[in-house]
Amino acid sequence: MYPNEKYPSQTLREAVEAIGSLPGVGSRSALRLALHLLGQPAENIRHFASAIGRLADDVHWCRTCQMIADGDECAICADRSRDHRTICVVESVRDVMSIEATGQYRGVYHVLGGIISPIDGIGPSDIHIRELVERIDRMHAEDAAVTDLPGGDSESRGSIEIILALSGDVEGETTSLYIYRQIEGKDVKVSTLARGLGFGDDLEYADALTLGRSIVARQPFKP
Amino acid sequence: MYPNEKYPSQTLREAVEAIGSLPGVGSRSALRLALHLLGQPAENIRHFASAIGRLADDVHWCRTCQMIADGDECAICADRSRDHRTICVVESVRDVMSIEATGQYRGVYHVLGGIISPIDGIGPSDIHIRELVERIDRMHAEDAAVTDLPGGDSESRGSIEIILALSGDVEGETTSLYIYRQIEGKDVKVSTLARGLGFGDDLEYADALTLGRSIVARQPFKP
Repeated sequence: MYPNEKYPSQTLREAVEAIGSLPGVGSRSALRLALHLLGQPAENIRHFASAIGRLADDVHWCRTCQMIADGDECAICADRSRDHRTICVVESVRDVMSIEATGQYRGVYHVLGGIISPIDGIGPSDIHIRELVERIDRMHAEDAAVTDLPGGDSESRGSIEIILALSGDVEGETTSLYIYRQIEGKDVKVSTLARGLGFGDDLEYADALTLGRSIVARQPFKP
Repeated sequence: MYPNEKYPSQTLREAVEAIGSLPGVGSRSALRLALHLLGQPAENIRHFASAIGRLADDVHWCRTCQMIADGDECAICADRSRDHRTICVVESVRDVMSIEATGQYRGVYHVLGGIISPIDGIGPSDIHIRELVERIDRMHAEDAAVTDLPGGDSESRGSIEIILALSGDVEGETTSLYIYRQIEGKDVKVSTLARGLGFGDDLEYADALTLGRSIVARQPFKP
């Protein structure tokens, strides 16, 4: 047996512990991955470590929507062809990527960076709700400035829509409600994702809550 | 959609690609792990990257057995209480750790760092076979030096045993045979691992080859 708790090298032990700290990676997998890396040319290992390390220093956050970006503004906010008056509020970077992958959405986003969860000690001020409220206020102020110009007409810019696209669990519902209370009365349309059976879902395997709500919120049949 | 092949940031894309290059880690898992890291404090990310990066520069190899070590000599070769005349030849660092974990072996090791595999273009000179032969020659030379001293007696140091502990597949068998040919006639005892049904194995689920060999190589019953 080795002095370093069964590892033949302190360096290997630290690498295994680092990899094993990732969610869903057990200690055996961590050892396997560390030994795989160890078997690579030194240049590859350095490249790997550097790619990870840059996550600490080279990732920027969009000043408008809090999405990760390569600079001060993300590619979506920088895209003038998108509908900047429809803002989809999501919990995480991952959610933006999932919605973008559908190719169905042409608006912009607002990334909260978390969800209100008293159990985890995350309150409204820990996520980017204030930034959303300020963003809406700023849009209204800009609209008003345009209206004040000779011939200006804020109506022509269209209304603002906020889509609350949070998860359907207690934390998601709580966060949606909290945000709604913050922005109601601000002259914005607030919507949320359609919920029901997934396309292709079998009734037999649907959970009772989803199936029940799908019946209550039934929609006109479109042949 | 993003310009960087669906990634909102070049840095994120490179991190995901690096993680996804690990064996058994798919692109979805890689994204999940990269976003997990991204959600950590910068200090944690740097610590993680540094722990990996040190695999490139801070891992040493034992000059005697080619095991990874913290210095020029591994903890096992440095341990004078072990039997340095019994050398277990294994393919990899992982194998040493597996055998050490059994707590059943008190000899030392020789890590080949690979296995002869013509398909993968790995020949005898690509793995540490020459070092094993030289190691045996060196031990014999040391024995002779002791014998030459007044009152010296090489017999008292005991014979040298080489345990070929390689895998049971074609590459392992080929490598074992190759090593045997190199060291036969060098006054060493050569042995290999016992093979048969695992302890607790059910006959019903044993593969035919293992079961067949277990019958042919049957052992005296010890009540």
